[in-house]
Amino acid sequence: MTLVVVGSIAFDAVRTPFGARERMLGGAATHFSLSASFFTDVRVVGPVGDDFGDDEYAVLHSRGVNTDDVEHVAGGQTFFWRAHYDNDMNTAHTEDTRLGVFGDFEPKLSEASRSADHLFLANIQPDVQRDVHRQCTGTRFAGLDSMNLWIDTARDSLVETIKGVDLVFLNDAEIRMLTGQPSMLVAAREIMAMGPSAIVAKQGEYGAALFTEDGFFALPAYPLEKVVDPTGAGDSFAGGFLGFLASQDDWQDEAALRRAMTYGTVTASFNVEELGTERVARLTREEIEERFEAIRGMTTLDAMPA
Amino acid sequence: MTLVVVGSIAFDAVRTPFGARERMLGGAATHFSLSASFFTDVRVVGPVGDDFGDDEYAVLHSRGVNTDDVEHVAGGQTFFWRAHYDNDMNTAHTEDTRLGVFGDFEPKLSEASRSADHLFLANIQPDVQRDVHRQCTGTRFAGLDSMNLWIDTARDSLVETIKGVDLVFLNDAEIRMLTGQPSMLVAAREIMAMGPSAIVAKQGEYGAALFTEDGFFALPAYPLEKVVDPTGAGDSFAGGFLGFLASQDDWQDEAALRRAMTYGTVTASFNVEELGTERVARLTREEIEERFEAIRGMTTLDAMPA
Repeated sequence: MTLVVVGSIAFDAVRTPFGARERMLGGAATHFSLSASFFTDVRVVGPVGDDFGDDEYAVLHSRGVNTDDVEHVAGGQTFFWRAHYDNDMNTAHTEDTRLGVFGDFEPKLSEASRSADHLFLANIQPDVQRDVHRQCTGTRFAGLDSMNLWIDTARDSLVETIKGVDLVFLNDAEIRMLTGQPSMLVAAREIMAMGPSAIVAKQGEYGAALFTEDGFFALPAYPLEKVVDPTGAGDSFAGGFLGFLASQDDWQDEAALRRAMTYGTVTASFNVEELGTERVARLTREEIEERFEAIRGMTTLDAMPA
Repeated sequence: MTLVVVGSIAFDAVRTPFGARERMLGGAATHFSLSASFFTDVRVVGPVGDDFGDDEYAVLHSRGVNTDDVEHVAGGQTFFWRAHYDNDMNTAHTEDTRLGVFGDFEPKLSEASRSADHLFLANIQPDVQRDVHRQCTGTRFAGLDSMNLWIDTARDSLVETIKGVDLVFLNDAEIRMLTGQPSMLVAAREIMAMGPSAIVAKQGEYGAALFTEDGFFALPAYPLEKVVDPTGAGDSFAGGFLGFLASQDDWQDEAALRRAMTYGTVTASFNVEELGTERVARLTREEIEERFEAIRGMTTLDAMPA
């Protein structure tokens, strides 16, 4: 089973109340890949510039992520993002964005990626997402993420893209913005009526909720003493979620989707414990399973906690 | 087992996107009493004016709530609150507050209330809460609610009151404001270190989280197509929670506390389905149990939904 992710690969400069880095590996596709790599084979598709080197590839390769479709644009610079977080870690304050080679990104998938079983369209312009999806010929499922910018400026295109995918990852505000519905239940049903069979509402520190045709499931975020850097939490969540789901025979099974929610919660919780990809880069499957069981204990109605 | 609640009894004028009432029974002690009444004997302590009549008493009596300690202040007017909600139902926009007899409320508990097993101090000035607690002689447990106003203007008194109680109900923002801690886990531990053995973080549409010495448990709000009137949801939650807990032999048992969280979630969800007390006033225990099981299905990691 292979999972292809198409999206940004970046250098991030991030400052939070608990630490700072002037330049570290980041980007939606990076965070997604690393978390998904614990459960399935991952291929990452995205553009990088001349500043992207062996150290960065090594992080991806150490987790077994296939980078054959990482496109090196000669003479270009990798997407760069500078931001800081204040005490309210729910809000990133962007100081600088340099799209670099990501600005002209026209994904061209190799045959190996086109024929992969599973696809995740990280947050990029929805026309581009649809173009990628058309290139893929045999996906069991495709998921997407998006953002308020595209709901604002390319809503019709985004809706077209959503019609073609199976799983949608958006935060609460984006789901309400897309549908104009105050009730998440009604809003999620409205998006499912476009085509997808599952909607995952990302809720930051409150965790995430899963809406399917017959089901509702919600998990809190794993409680941490310290969130060091929330950057990439949503992509890390989607990576753990879809990576696990790609490994399942019946991905539409409600129990499989609920376990996927839990694995996404686990990988996101590790992702935010340190800056950038630092924690997930040295994460182990044993640590993942341990936290999975802790979450089970924290959400079981009748049982004592672990 | 008896549960005494001390707090406001009010008339509310509320307008939401889904309905409006010019004058309906409200107040923290009212919402709490009605929800708690499904699980234990309830005595309500609070002041009312000449405008409070048989119709209002009938709502409380129909649920078996004992009103012997409702203090009728001759010549006074009952606490009145006028507010509206826009599409963001998380925020009440207050248009008018007339404290009336509640402004000079000095609770004097009858012997029956003083000797009750359980006490809930709804949101009132913390000196008054402490005075009430001192009047009670044999409580198994006492809980309290408070608000940002008292954290701002009477923090030391509130901390003194918290030191004496067993369960604290506050929303996330209040917990952070009280402790100055961004992490809810660290903040809850800091409040527990003052004395209480359980902290319930109310999270509005995201449900609630329970912190105990060894445990963490969280539940989403029950997903509704329409929230008609969120007024009183927090008090209705606390009522279902503490009412159930009062009926348990070992109220500190983690499983009992988790079931209390679930019953609180259930009563709050019914409370917001219609304006004011209208839905809870005709609620049945059977409906409560049905929704309890639905929530169990929605939060069980490995099982199919009901």
